[in-house]
Amino acid sequence: MTEIAQPAPPDGTPPPPVTDSLGEVPVAFQDPGYRAAVVDLIGAIAYGEISAFDRLAEDARLAPSLADKLALGKMATVQFNHVEPLLARITALGAEPMQAMAPFVKPFDAFHAKTAPSNWLEGLVKAYVGDGLAADFYREVAAFLDADTRDLVIASLVDSGHSDFVVDRVRRAIERDGRVAGPLALWGRRLMGEALSQAQRVVAERDSLAALLAGGVDRPGLDLAALGRMFTRLTENHAKRMAELGLAS
Amino acid sequence: MTEIAQPAPPDGTPPPPVTDSLGEVPVAFQDPGYRAAVVDLIGAIAYGEISAFDRLAEDARLAPSLADKLALGKMATVQFNHVEPLLARITALGAEPMQAMAPFVKPFDAFHAKTAPSNWLEGLVKAYVGDGLAADFYREVAAFLDADTRDLVIASLVDSGHSDFVVDRVRRAIERDGRVAGPLALWGRRLMGEALSQAQRVVAERDSLAALLAGGVDRPGLDLAALGRMFTRLTENHAKRMAELGLAS
Repeated sequence: MTEIAQPAPPDGTPPPPVTDSLGEVPVAFQDPGYRAAVVDLIGAIAYGEISAFDRLAEDARLAPSLADKLALGKMATVQFNHVEPLLARITALGAEPMQAMAPFVKPFDAFHAKTAPSNWLEGLVKAYVGDGLAADFYREVAAFLDADTRDLVIASLVDSGHSDFVVDRVRRAIERDGRVAGPLALWGRRLMGEALSQAQRVVAERDSLAALLAGGVDRPGLDLAALGRMFTRLTENHAKRMAELGLAS
Repeated sequence: MTEIAQPAPPDGTPPPPVTDSLGEVPVAFQDPGYRAAVVDLIGAIAYGEISAFDRLAEDARLAPSLADKLALGKMATVQFNHVEPLLARITALGAEPMQAMAPFVKPFDAFHAKTAPSNWLEGLVKAYVGDGLAADFYREVAAFLDADTRDLVIASLVDSGHSDFVVDRVRRAIERDGRVAGPLALWGRRLMGEALSQAQRVVAERDSLAALLAGGVDRPGLDLAALGRMFTRLTENHAKRMAELGLAS
């Protein structure tokens, strides 16, 4: 296992003990590598939500109607509302939230820069597919976490059922004019490709996250075969979402 | 009093009776003009919050740090979270929320187009001064409303103390470099001018709002002298806010 830097407060004092909902220190956190990995993971999720908020708010400007604008604004707000509990957890783990998010600014910003929607429908498909993919991925990773962190991560994935709105709008657009389906299907494939490429870069650069997936004394790990199955599940779920939209994947 | 169109559902059925928190129909709502005015007012506030959300989310991109970006994103989200209860009230009043907001899209968008901040500090001053001015104005108007509508309007003005953040950032920027104060003071004056000019246009075009300020059988009204005093109060509060930021008004 690669050596992992322990996140510490700027003044160099050791981080406070982490307690779970029963006030006990989970065994997992006795491993400084695990603590670093959880800080990284929560930092990534938090910045992911902030950047999704940012992009959804911008994409809302492409909305053809006030009702559509409102729906996308609502999706943006739901994402943002998840951020505070995540940052509070990073602080409780003895790390500084802005520092914890910093390594993920570039990859998320790069993803969004490379996948800026050129129209309203592309924005909708991106919101639906991107959100779904991120949620699937974090849900997979959550299996390797202590119970409290897992609950926090799962809670941050709640989307308040706005998916129905996206599915409805995209399907109706395709019904009106079938020619939009081809380019949107290509768009979905590009989104998946960019997301995977950024995710791989993140895991490659952050040893702690790679170590998290490898498991620990009291936590299950993931061998190469299991990792392959995980990617298969992610791809299958992506295909299901595209089908839901009426698009080939 | 100018004749006022009664908002009605698209199918032409009369709107349902409005009940207050005790399940009674407030006397005020027996006046269809009052009902139309309340729908207008809530529509204006709701679209104002949506457009403020939109602009704050965009201005967050000018943030010099992740923490600053987060703070502005939070302000945007707080604004947006006020929208749903307002729209629910419009529906309860027998009107269609999107239609109720529609007349206010142009004036608010025009205000924002004419006051797009060219840097981070201008964005902060706009958020603080614009928010404060809108809150003052709605609080003044709230005095002319039935109790339930008043509570709703007041609740939508809560800003969760983010003003402290703006005041701190602007004052620190002026401490670092006093030369920013002059242009920001001019900027504040321009914001006030644009806000007043758009507000006047709205009241001139929406007879119902003018009628609201004029009062009714069971509601106090505002004569010209009282209207003048109201504008004096708005201007004084604006000056206080500018002074709070360390800026001349």
